[in-house]
Amino acid sequence: MTDTVSLTGAARAAALRDEAQAIAQELGRAHGVQPRLVVVVATEDESTAWYVRSITRAAGKAGIACDTVTLPADAEAGTIRKQLAELSADPDVHGVILQTPLPPGTSAADLAGAIAPGKDVDGANPLSLGRLAAGLPAFAPATAEAVVSLLDAHGIGLAGRSVAVVGRSTVVGKPLAHLLLDRDATVTVCHSRTADLAAATRTADIVVAAAGRAGLITADHLAQGAVVVDVGTNPTEDGGLTGDVDAESVAGRAAALSPVPGGVGPVTTALLLQHTALAAQRAVAAHQ
Amino acid sequence: MTDTVSLTGAARAAALRDEAQAIAQELGRAHGVQPRLVVVVATEDESTAWYVRSITRAAGKAGIACDTVTLPADAEAGTIRKQLAELSADPDVHGVILQTPLPPGTSAADLAGAIAPGKDVDGANPLSLGRLAAGLPAFAPATAEAVVSLLDAHGIGLAGRSVAVVGRSTVVGKPLAHLLLDRDATVTVCHSRTADLAAATRTADIVVAAAGRAGLITADHLAQGAVVVDVGTNPTEDGGLTGDVDAESVAGRAAALSPVPGGVGPVTTALLLQHTALAAQRAVAAHQ
Repeated sequence: MTDTVSLTGAARAAALRDEAQAIAQELGRAHGVQPRLVVVVATEDESTAWYVRSITRAAGKAGIACDTVTLPADAEAGTIRKQLAELSADPDVHGVILQTPLPPGTSAADLAGAIAPGKDVDGANPLSLGRLAAGLPAFAPATAEAVVSLLDAHGIGLAGRSVAVVGRSTVVGKPLAHLLLDRDATVTVCHSRTADLAAATRTADIVVAAAGRAGLITADHLAQGAVVVDVGTNPTEDGGLTGDVDAESVAGRAAALSPVPGGVGPVTTALLLQHTALAAQRAVAAHQ
Repeated sequence: MTDTVSLTGAARAAALRDEAQAIAQELGRAHGVQPRLVVVVATEDESTAWYVRSITRAAGKAGIACDTVTLPADAEAGTIRKQLAELSADPDVHGVILQTPLPPGTSAADLAGAIAPGKDVDGANPLSLGRLAAGLPAFAPATAEAVVSLLDAHGIGLAGRSVAVVGRSTVVGKPLAHLLLDRDATVTVCHSRTADLAAATRTADIVVAAAGRAGLITADHLAQGAVVVDVGTNPTEDGGLTGDVDAESVAGRAAALSPVPGGVGPVTTALLLQHTALAAQRAVAAHQ
């Protein structure tokens, strides 16, 4: 039994924010342009509001403008789509995010089809996902990219390694599978209907937990020495966050584990800013 | 050791052609419309020409018009894209396929972005792939869908089963992974960089070989009683076709194996016709 290394995200997040800030400063100096991100919210959910405030704060520090457009929690699909189309057409806006949860009866993927691919900094438009899968340039969903970025930051190789992704969501599991395949990993996607989850994950070199179920992954699910990335952000009773991995259980069995909070989360936020800065840079270049 | 069942495609293909024909007849009777498929070819490859002739023949039998547009084998991307856009805008055309191989330096997925999603009957536009992954309506690539359709036809369940897909192409492996996840299978995507292919496939209930390497899959790659679907179409020296599975080796070990030719192939062609008939039906409905 060896110590489990903590795959913290702070250093990589800081590097990404620095990159975003450098681009923002250069765009300001050379073109008088400030990268601008707009977050569209159609919920009164308190944890969403908290998350949007944290993005806004991080953006400000990186020199990126961040506006929030708040629609009613019962907004119709047409209203949301129209708002996204207007922002997509606005030359002063470089990145557009549609925040979940959304009003009942609407589909995030369907609505996100109205976000222009060049401004789709959270890879929510199905076209972005398809282009990603086809090996064409596109912004990946920030959370999925954050998993790969965090592993890179800690020098954990992917080529030829077996990776079990637990969770098949459109925003994490599925795009992550494509990012991992693109890096030559052998990828298994497991989910709530997987017959024997522990059997499927126990042969993997790397396990990514993105199921949204607190404590789902225990030592029983891991090969000795497996690397574990925890994407879960489950609310705790005391108002905090806990991951999908039972950290106490896997200690000593996992070679490395990303903490929650402090692992994937800060890298995700930083990638949204980096994407926005890159989108602004490309928009300026396209108009020269 | 038990006999290996042959997962032939003829019966399912016939049922799909009948469905296409019934739609074509109804559209002709009620609206004077004949479903029309156009295949765009930019190669002098002889096996492509053979394949296009076989689609044309099958279409004719189902009452579906099938035209071929032949561009030079050195056509530029812009020329091909313009042709696809024209066909996408032509109200008399209901389905558009861009045949591979394509001229050097062009990307099939990139060019297929010019095919209108409603006419993208072979699911080649990255938007179709993204919508498929996001659970939104879209045509799947016919070969990928044919694998699932063939398994359905032979009563082989997918929910909760483990499926190893060997091959990560944009036209088969990747979209197939999404179709299988959608059916609640646990999916592992293997490829040429997988460290130990046999270890990855040997635990699977179902193995789908889509690597394009003759004889790649042998008894060593299979659990006793595994179901094997062979998507390979590798040319033989005598002008025939052979799959990715060594049929002699897996006999008795596999519970079932789809033959090449005569397995996935005829179902693929029939699905292209069914998709074209459905596309025509939707186009007519949209104009009423």
